[in-house]
Amino acid sequence: MKVLVVGANGQIGKHLVSFIQDSDKLKAKAMIRKQEQASYFENLGAETAVVDLEGDIDTIAKACEDVDAMVFTAGSGPHTGKDKTIMVDLDGAVKTVEAAKKAGVKRYVMISSFDTSREAIQAAPSSFAPYVAAKHYADEWLKRTDLDYTIIHPGLLTNDEGTGQVEAASKVERGEIPREDVASVIVASLENDSTIRKEFQIVTGTTPVKDAVKSI
Amino acid sequence: MKVLVVGANGQIGKHLVSFIQDSDKLKAKAMIRKQEQASYFENLGAETAVVDLEGDIDTIAKACEDVDAMVFTAGSGPHTGKDKTIMVDLDGAVKTVEAAKKAGVKRYVMISSFDTSREAIQAAPSSFAPYVAAKHYADEWLKRTDLDYTIIHPGLLTNDEGTGQVEAASKVERGEIPREDVASVIVASLENDSTIRKEFQIVTGTTPVKDAVKSI
Repeated sequence: MKVLVVGANGQIGKHLVSFIQDSDKLKAKAMIRKQEQASYFENLGAETAVVDLEGDIDTIAKACEDVDAMVFTAGSGPHTGKDKTIMVDLDGAVKTVEAAKKAGVKRYVMISSFDTSREAIQAAPSSFAPYVAAKHYADEWLKRTDLDYTIIHPGLLTNDEGTGQVEAASKVERGEIPREDVASVIVASLENDSTIRKEFQIVTGTTPVKDAVKSI
Repeated sequence: MKVLVVGANGQIGKHLVSFIQDSDKLKAKAMIRKQEQASYFENLGAETAVVDLEGDIDTIAKACEDVDAMVFTAGSGPHTGKDKTIMVDLDGAVKTVEAAKKAGVKRYVMISSFDTSREAIQAAPSSFAPYVAAKHYADEWLKRTDLDYTIIHPGLLTNDEGTGQVEAASKVERGEIPREDVASVIVASLENDSTIRKEFQIVTGTTPVKDAVKSI
């Protein structure tokens, strides 16, 4: 199963490509914005595709013609300009969904924000609300397709080393999670079809990743 | 037919409330953000409702419980902060659509931007693209409801006096249009059910507003 990783050069993305390359069943194609980011992924034995997420759907569709799944882990992050919030976190995400449909890629894993509900938009501080709203609309768009999606809602991301132990459920108590563990959960989701057309929150917990994902 | 005008205190909104009050069949309820904006509309004989578009859906739904139609002509405008673009032009609009559904208001007129197609997002200069994207997703959200919507796509807005003459069609040549004429087109659309579940562009032209709207 070849997986296009959108946002491969991000912090979750780098862990993810590495874990995919280490797995038996999966291989990665890293979607990156600049050619100079390629060598890192080539050293991991991964393919690369240089595509700007702010480009058009056809270009993205071309990059996923030969893949079986797509993971969206790109993000402007909550602290970039708000123009990027809408153009990357919302419109960029939607374009990858449309590209997947166009190229016939059924399996799609979206890395969302911890809580993208209507209530979360209303409750968010005004500096954070646009990011939550962008992720909300991207998730909504995906849910209205017939793709085999999984939407993962991680808690507060840290750069701590992964523990391999998480809590995963449709609702969990707010908490932290290392980016490395998010990457592990993505791989486990790709390997587990019971996550198809489901969404769940994840934070650090006491259950091994594979078991936690199996229980979804 | 009582019409809730969302964004009544805007430049199109003020013309619109005035035209509605002048019409035989319609009366206006002006949705405004601040109490001190009320007197202007009370002087026109219109009702008012003080509601912040950044508030929750229930509050907006309450304001439209006694109305028969809603017009969305609020806008952060293309030159406000990009956080407002997503929170007002997209999320604010969606919340009014959801409020209309909740309150059982079937008729909904959306004032959009001239071209909110996927192609227009890609073609827009980077400073304008977030606004086009926000309007695109608001329009898409509305089109996926079963409301009796009309989506009006005006050309470049001016403060010139209205001519009462427009060109209206699904695609027209790009051009200018006075805000006053946009308000006239809204009233004609509310009075003409043949505009239901349709969208069209308008610019200044040579056909009287009522005839132009009738031909949609």
